[in-house]
Amino acid sequence: MDNTKKNNQADEFDLTAMDLPRDLKGLSISECRQLARQIRRTLITTVSKNGGHLSSNLGTVELTIAIHRVFDSPQDKVIWDVGHQAYTHKLLTGRADRFSTIRTENGLSGFTRPDESEHDAFISGHSSNSISAALGIAVSMKLKGDEHFTIAVLGDGALTGGESFEGLNNAGKSRTNLIIVLNYNEMSISKNVGATAKYLSTLRTKESYHKTKSAVENVLNSTPIVGNPIKQFVRGSKNVLKDMILHSTMFEDLGFEFVGPIDGHNIEELEAGLSAAKALRCPTIVMVNTQKGHGYAPAEANPGGYHGVGAFDLSTGNPDVVPEDSWSAVFGRKLLSLAYEHTNICAVTAAMKYGTGLYYFHHALPRRFFDVGIAEQHAATFCGGLASNGMIPVFAVYSTFLQRCYDQLLHDLSIIDTHAVIGVDRAGIVGEDGETHQGIFDIPFLTTIPGVTIYSPSNYRELEICLEKAILSDKGLCAVRYPRGAEKLFGGHDEADTELVRHTRGARVAAVTYGRLYNELMTADAVLQKHGITIDIYKPVKIFPVSDRLAEALKGYDKVFFFEESYEYGSIGEKYAALGINTDRTACKGFVAHGSTESLLDKLGLSAEKMAEKIMEYFENGKA
Amino acid sequence: MDNTKKNNQADEFDLTAMDLPRDLKGLSISECRQLARQIRRTLITTVSKNGGHLSSNLGTVELTIAIHRVFDSPQDKVIWDVGHQAYTHKLLTGRADRFSTIRTENGLSGFTRPDESEHDAFISGHSSNSISAALGIAVSMKLKGDEHFTIAVLGDGALTGGESFEGLNNAGKSRTNLIIVLNYNEMSISKNVGATAKYLSTLRTKESYHKTKSAVENVLNSTPIVGNPIKQFVRGSKNVLKDMILHSTMFEDLGFEFVGPIDGHNIEELEAGLSAAKALRCPTIVMVNTQKGHGYAPAEANPGGYHGVGAFDLSTGNPDVVPEDSWSAVFGRKLLSLAYEHTNICAVTAAMKYGTGLYYFHHALPRRFFDVGIAEQHAATFCGGLASNGMIPVFAVYSTFLQRCYDQLLHDLSIIDTHAVIGVDRAGIVGEDGETHQGIFDIPFLTTIPGVTIYSPSNYRELEICLEKAILSDKGLCAVRYPRGAEKLFGGHDEADTELVRHTRGARVAAVTYGRLYNELMTADAVLQKHGITIDIYKPVKIFPVSDRLAEALKGYDKVFFFEESYEYGSIGEKYAALGINTDRTACKGFVAHGSTESLLDKLGLSAEKMAEKIMEYFENGKA
Repeated sequence: MDNTKKNNQADEFDLTAMDLPRDLKGLSISECRQLARQIRRTLITTVSKNGGHLSSNLGTVELTIAIHRVFDSPQDKVIWDVGHQAYTHKLLTGRADRFSTIRTENGLSGFTRPDESEHDAFISGHSSNSISAALGIAVSMKLKGDEHFTIAVLGDGALTGGESFEGLNNAGKSRTNLIIVLNYNEMSISKNVGATAKYLSTLRTKESYHKTKSAVENVLNSTPIVGNPIKQFVRGSKNVLKDMILHSTMFEDLGFEFVGPIDGHNIEELEAGLSAAKALRCPTIVMVNTQKGHGYAPAEANPGGYHGVGAFDLSTGNPDVVPEDSWSAVFGRKLLSLAYEHTNICAVTAAMKYGTGLYYFHHALPRRFFDVGIAEQHAATFCGGLASNGMIPVFAVYSTFLQRCYDQLLHDLSIIDTHAVIGVDRAGIVGEDGETHQGIFDIPFLTTIPGVTIYSPSNYRELEICLEKAILSDKGLCAVRYPRGAEKLFGGHDEADTELVRHTRGARVAAVTYGRLYNELMTADAVLQKHGITIDIYKPVKIFPVSDRLAEALKGYDKVFFFEESYEYGSIGEKYAALGINTDRTACKGFVAHGSTESLLDKLGLSAEKMAEKIMEYFENGKA
Repeated sequence: MDNTKKNNQADEFDLTAMDLPRDLKGLSISECRQLARQIRRTLITTVSKNGGHLSSNLGTVELTIAIHRVFDSPQDKVIWDVGHQAYTHKLLTGRADRFSTIRTENGLSGFTRPDESEHDAFISGHSSNSISAALGIAVSMKLKGDEHFTIAVLGDGALTGGESFEGLNNAGKSRTNLIIVLNYNEMSISKNVGATAKYLSTLRTKESYHKTKSAVENVLNSTPIVGNPIKQFVRGSKNVLKDMILHSTMFEDLGFEFVGPIDGHNIEELEAGLSAAKALRCPTIVMVNTQKGHGYAPAEANPGGYHGVGAFDLSTGNPDVVPEDSWSAVFGRKLLSLAYEHTNICAVTAAMKYGTGLYYFHHALPRRFFDVGIAEQHAATFCGGLASNGMIPVFAVYSTFLQRCYDQLLHDLSIIDTHAVIGVDRAGIVGEDGETHQGIFDIPFLTTIPGVTIYSPSNYRELEICLEKAILSDKGLCAVRYPRGAEKLFGGHDEADTELVRHTRGARVAAVTYGRLYNELMTADAVLQKHGITIDIYKPVKIFPVSDRLAEALKGYDKVFFFEESYEYGSIGEKYAALGINTDRTACKGFVAHGSTESLLDKLGLSAEKMAEKIMEYFENGKA
C-alpha cells in the first residue's frame, strides 16, 4: 500500500488519495497500527485548533478502523451514538480533505449527519438514540430482504439514558442483523453513575477474549467464502460460537448474544470480536474496553476535562471547560452559597457536573448533589419526588437536553404545582456544536407548560438575583436560563433586576430583548444615537408569564422590534404580538447550523450591528 | 371487627365508618379475603356505571390490602405507577364514601392525586415515572433522617418505559428504604412486548416463595418488637434473609435485592414478601404475580378489552373499547387500506394497539406492525430509522403520550427532515381521564418543531384524505390529529378538504375553528342565523404551517373568533393573532380536570351553545 503514503511526510498515509473505507481492508495489522498513530496526531492537532471532543475520539481510533475493515459501509450501516466520537470515522470515510474544517462554519459538523456523507447512517448529537435508530434500519433491511448489518456504537454513558433501554428491550427479540458495540470507557461526560456502570465494570474485567479469539478463528478458518456459506456454517456450528460468549449477563437476559469484553486498542482482537458478532447474524452486543484520551497523556490523565473543549494549547494541553468566568460557574457558585444557608436545596445534573458548574456543589455538599446519568426524564421526576417531600430541587441542564423531559416537566412538576427550579444552561446559540445543540427551543416549549416562570438574566449579577428569587421566593416550576460562555457587557452598565428594565426617552419606536442580547441591543443603541435615532428600550428579565406592565407600555408604539435567540414559533415576541402589539420580530427561522456564536448571531440578525442596521432601515424608509 | 360491618347488607364492611387504612391491620386473614370480595363487587359495579380501568384494579385488590397492612401510609409513601390501578387504594384510604363519584365531574379522579388525599404520595397518569418519583421521596427521607419507607408499585408494562430503567439505574445504589413492587400481570395495555417481558415470564414461574415464607417467618418470629430492634436483628441475620432472595436476576445486576415471585392474590404470601422487603431496609424489588381482571369472569377472559373502558353492561360485560364507529377505528382501517397498496408503510404503536385502532393492521400485516411497549421515545427514533431506509412509518399515539418524545421528534425526525407520520389520537379533550390525559398540548409543542405539518380533520372522510395525503404526498414530519370517540356531525354536511373550507357571506365578523369543534361552530352558526346574526366561518384542515390564504382573508375582519381545544399558549389562534389579526380566542387556560367531554367543552366555552353566546354578546354590545 505504499502508493497511499505521502512522500512529503515519511510514512504517512494520504487519506485523501485512498479509496476509503474500502482500502482499509488491504492494510496489514502493522499498517493499521501505524494508521492509528497518524490519526491520533491529526485528532490532537485539529482539536487543539478547532476545539471539539478529544478524549472520546482518541478512545475509538482502533475501534473505528476495525469496524470499517470488518463491515462494508455504506451498505452496512454504522450509527454513532452522540456522534462526537466519530471523528476517526469521518477521516476514514472520504472526509480527510475537509477534516481541518470540523466545527467551523460551512465546514464538517462535529457530529454525524446523513447529509454530510452516505457513511453517516443517522443524525447524532443527543445521547442514547442509536439503538432505536439502528433497530429501525435493521428492521427495514429485514423487510426488504437485505442481509447487511446495522452497527450501533455507544458508550457506557449513553446506556444510562432510558431510550437506550427501550431500544434494547425491542432489539433483543428482533431477529435482525443488528450489532451493538458497547464502548466501555468508564467515563461518560462526568464520572459515570448508577448501577449499570457498576455492573459493567464487573464485566470489564472478565477474561473471555482468548476463548473468543480461538473460537472465531475456528469459524473463520473453516469458511473461506463470505456470504451465505458462512451463514450456513455458523448455523451448523452454533455450539462452537456459543463458546465465545460470556454467559449470564444482563444483556443475555434481554435477548442478546454477548461477545467480549475485548481490548478496544488491539485491532486484531477487535476484528475477531466483530467478526464473531457478524457470524452470529442475530442481535449481538460486543463489549469493547477503551481508554478515553488514549495516546495523549494530558487527556488520559484528565479525560473529563477533555470531553468537549474549546481550542487549547497543544503543549500544555490545558482545556477550556467551564472557566471561572462563565455563566455556568456563576450559577454553580451562587447555588452553592444559597445551599449553605438553606439545607433543603438539592442539586441535580444529568451527567453534566462540569459543564453546568455544579462541581462546586458536588465538592462541598455531596449528600445533596445528584448526578443521575444521561437521564433527563428521571432527573425531572426525581426533582418532583424531592420537592413533594420538602426539598427545593435545582436541576441544571443544557437547554437542548431539557427537551428530553418535556413530558415530565408537564406531568410530574407542573400539574401538581411543584416548586422546582431548572437552571437552563447553554440557552440560545451555542456555536460550534451546531443544530443538534442550539438552545433555541426552551422558550417555545417551556411556555407551553401551565404555571411556569422563566427568567432570562442579561448579566452575572442578574443571574444571581434571579436564581435566588426562583429558589427562595417563587412558587411552582421556575426556569432560569443563561447562555454558554462568559458575560459580555456593553460599554455602559445597568442595574440588575428580576422583572423589567426600561430606558424610555419618549420615542415612537421601541426595541425589546432579554438575556445576553440586551448587551448587543445597548451597543446598537449607541450606534443609533450617533446617527440621531432615538428608540426606547425594554429588557424583560422575568420573560414569562407575559408582563402586563410591558404589554401596556408597548401598545403605545408605532413599532416594537423584538430580538431573540429563540425559534420563532413560541417566541416571547410572538406572544406580545398576539396581544395586538405591532412587532417586527427577529428570531430563528429553523435549525441553526454550526459556526462561531458571534458569526451565527450576526447571520441571524442578532448582532449589535445587524440590530442597528435593521432599525435604521426602518427609520430611513420614513416609517417613523 | 364486627362493628365495622353494616347491618343492611350481611357481612359487608362499612368502609366509610372504619379508620382506614389503620383498621386493616386488625383484620384476620379470613376477614381480609372477605374484604377483597366486597371490594371486587364495588369495583365491578362502579366501573360498570362510571367507566374506568377495571382489569388492572381487579388484579391489585389483595396487593393493596397487604401493602396497607404492612406499611403505615401516609408516613410510608405509596406511589402507584399509572394510578389507574389504585381504585382499591382509594377505597381503603378514606374515600369509600365518594367512590361512586370516581371519574365524574367534581368527583374522585381516576388516578392518584396528592391534592385528593394525603395517601396519594405523587401524581400519576403517565406510565413509568413511579420509580423516579419514589426515589426522590426516599432520598429526601434519608436526608431528613426519616426511616419510613417509600413503595412504588408498577406493572410489567410500565417497566418497558425508559424512565423506569433510568429510575432503576439510580435507585439500586441509593441506600434508601425504597421498595419497588413489580406487579407482573403479563399484560400491559395490549399484550406486553419485548425482551423484558420474556425475561420476566421466566422469573414468574420460579418457585422461590416457600423458601421466602419460612425465612421471613424465622425473622419475624424472632423480632416481636418493631422498629430498631428488627433492624438490628436483620443486620445480624443477613444470611438468613439472603435465603429468601432469588439470585442472579437482572435486577440484582442493577443493585437491588429481589424478593419473590409471590402469588399476588394470596394475602398471607403478600404480607410475608412485603415484610421481608421491609426488613431488608435497602432498595428491594418485590415481584408479585397477579391476574388482570381477577374475580370477574368476562375481564379474566379478555383483560385487554377491560383495560380502560366506558360504562358497560354488567351482565354481558361487553366493554366499549375502540368501537367500529370511532375516529381511531377509521384511522386504523384507512391506514391498513393504504398499507395494502404501499408495501413500505409500517405501523408503530407504544402499547396502544387496541386504543389506536391499529389492531386491524396488526391482524392483516403483522410483519410491518410494531408494538414497542410503553416506549414513545424509542418509537419516534425507530420511525426515524425506518424512514431513513425507505419505509414510511406511521406512529399512532395518544396526544398526551406523544409529549414523551418531544426531543426525538425534534432531533431524530425533524433535523434530517424525515418523512414520518404521527397519528395523534385522543387530541383535544378526552373527558373522564382528566388533566394527565387531556390532549391539549400537542398543537403547542408540535408547532415548535421546524418543518412540521399538522392536519386536524373535522369528520371521518377528512381524516381519511388527510391521512392519505400525509402518507403519500407530503414530505417531512406530518401529524394528523383526531379526537377520542366518534364523529359528531352538525345537521348540515360539508365537503371534505385537506386545506381550508370557508363559508363567506360578506360579514364583518368571522369565526375560525378546526377538528371536531367545527361541528359545534356550524351548530352555533345556525343559532346565530336564527337571531339574524351573520358571520363568516373558516375551517383550516391543514392547521399548520399557518395558511397565508387564511391570514390574508382574516385581516379584513373587525373581529375573528377562534375556538380551540388547545392550551392557549402555542395555540393556532395565537399564531394568527401574532400576524396582526384582531382575534378573540377561546382556548384552555391551563390543565383541564376530569368530567364528561361534553360538559368540559361547555365549561371551556367550546360547546355550540357557548360559542353562539359569546358571538351574540359581541353583537349585542354594539361592537359590530
